[in-house]
Amino acid sequence: MGGDHGPHVTVPSAINFLRCDPEANIILVGIPEAIESELRVQKINSGHRGIQIHPASEIVGMDESPALALRNKKDSSMRVAINLVKTGEAQACISAGNTGALLATSRFVLKTIPGIDRPALAVILPTVTGHTYVLDMGANVNCTAEHLLQFGVMGASLVSSVENKVAPSVGLLNIGEEEIKGNEIVKRAADLLRSSGLNFYGNVEGDDIYKGTTDVVVCDGFVGNVTLKTSEGLAQMLATYLREEFKRNLLTKLAGVFAVPAINAFKRRVDHRQYNGASFLGLKGIVIKSHGSADTIAFTAAIKRASDEVRGGMLRRISERVAELSQ
Amino acid sequence: MGGDHGPHVTVPSAINFLRCDPEANIILVGIPEAIESELRVQKINSGHRGIQIHPASEIVGMDESPALALRNKKDSSMRVAINLVKTGEAQACISAGNTGALLATSRFVLKTIPGIDRPALAVILPTVTGHTYVLDMGANVNCTAEHLLQFGVMGASLVSSVENKVAPSVGLLNIGEEEIKGNEIVKRAADLLRSSGLNFYGNVEGDDIYKGTTDVVVCDGFVGNVTLKTSEGLAQMLATYLREEFKRNLLTKLAGVFAVPAINAFKRRVDHRQYNGASFLGLKGIVIKSHGSADTIAFTAAIKRASDEVRGGMLRRISERVAELSQ
Repeated sequence: MGGDHGPHVTVPSAINFLRCDPEANIILVGIPEAIESELRVQKINSGHRGIQIHPASEIVGMDESPALALRNKKDSSMRVAINLVKTGEAQACISAGNTGALLATSRFVLKTIPGIDRPALAVILPTVTGHTYVLDMGANVNCTAEHLLQFGVMGASLVSSVENKVAPSVGLLNIGEEEIKGNEIVKRAADLLRSSGLNFYGNVEGDDIYKGTTDVVVCDGFVGNVTLKTSEGLAQMLATYLREEFKRNLLTKLAGVFAVPAINAFKRRVDHRQYNGASFLGLKGIVIKSHGSADTIAFTAAIKRASDEVRGGMLRRISERVAELSQ
Repeated sequence: MGGDHGPHVTVPSAINFLRCDPEANIILVGIPEAIESELRVQKINSGHRGIQIHPASEIVGMDESPALALRNKKDSSMRVAINLVKTGEAQACISAGNTGALLATSRFVLKTIPGIDRPALAVILPTVTGHTYVLDMGANVNCTAEHLLQFGVMGASLVSSVENKVAPSVGLLNIGEEEIKGNEIVKRAADLLRSSGLNFYGNVEGDDIYKGTTDVVVCDGFVGNVTLKTSEGLAQMLATYLREEFKRNLLTKLAGVFAVPAINAFKRRVDHRQYNGASFLGLKGIVIKSHGSADTIAFTAAIKRASDEVRGGMLRRISERVAELSQ
């Protein structure tokens, strides 16, 4: 029910996803009338194979306090969907709703995997050579070295699950100024990661994210969130500049028409919708946070991400790697 | 003498700058033979108006330890240039050399302005609407709320000096996740900035940097450095993608030829060379750090930045604003 568009996006995305993955089953959680009405728009009857409706009477507002949502909205679509993961009726929960409420509720209901102190949000970003996974993207503002180590373990497990890599490389985000090489927490995290058994690459700098230097980049949630938002801002600015330059005069406009195929191919490569879906890692269940403004293409990508994590056995991999750590 | 290219870049840049600003005087500090040889290449005799050579027998290596450089290289071009600022013979020092050594040496020689605990590096970045100043970009990894307040004061003074704005807007870089709005230090810094008498806009997020939401963006040096490097990496990746798409086939190559004027105009707008020169703020003297790989266009921009700060009375403005704070 959540996100800027509610069932108008989530329901057609579910149908889209089932077309690509006919063996999947999707439980649409929320107000049945709203869901059924959208299914009718999509010309799908509610008994359609792979589609099931699970009623929930409330909705968490996008601006609602996470604490209040957690306490008062026991029958929200978000809460009920997470409960289904808890009871094993669903193997993952995907939501485009209120981020804070989703983090708080899923943490409260599902609890963390033993050995993980703090769950973290992992996003996937494009690189020159492919893509990379960065965590934490904003779930934890103040992190200890141990938390950063756990992020490394979770990130590596995620990549192992969805990319089928045995030993994904893990980089620790740091700064490279000559005088001062990072703060004490990051220095200690590097020591912990070095002796963790992970394929630890060492420190990486901001530009290494988009160079694709490592499969996983670990940082605290403050730095991660600023990095992500800064990237969004820069990409938007560059797109604006490019558009303006092609609209400057008749000649550049004509050139712009000729350039359409190349520009469109470029746009497809950097289309953030294909990277939609942040993984909320470290819980005893799979939870994916879609961008609130996601359209059908983006939300379908988030469902796909959840499915990949389930099929790749991510929860088991995280548990195993954490257990190895404590040996 | 510093940077990747030494006098081959710094000397022609000085001459370039003098052509645009004939009233300026430039003291070229370093090994006289190397400087004179470069002046001859540029067909300038050493008695040229506005040009003066000041000998220094040593050079700080780009990879040298800042502590060792500070202790042992008392006659390095860097140290001697900073000494000239200290004695008032020069009004600013511009260097493309070893960043750590420049920070350590200028701080040791020049000392901080009363009321400033930590000097900070400010860079200028392009925005959709113009440009913005961001500090700290890596001089301080662990910052208190008071340090962030001082960065705000220094950033506002810088913008007042070089942009002639009476009350530049100051934003505090934070994250906007619903659940957790930044860490305790950032929260307290916001309180301090709010009651500082500065034109404090409030919290900004990463994307606000390139949106140009405020004239100044304040953050700690770890976050600032990661932000800057991430931006560099993303811009490079997007440039690579764009180039590849225009080279994909004969048609896109042809379109690329037509698109040259628009693409070149775009490149000029995002050309980082025009933004070269980080201001090392908070010292009793003006010090500009140029990128080590700067070419003549970039290094000339760094000299221009120093000149603007001197002419705008930046040091006096910082002192005055700090004094107002403590009232």
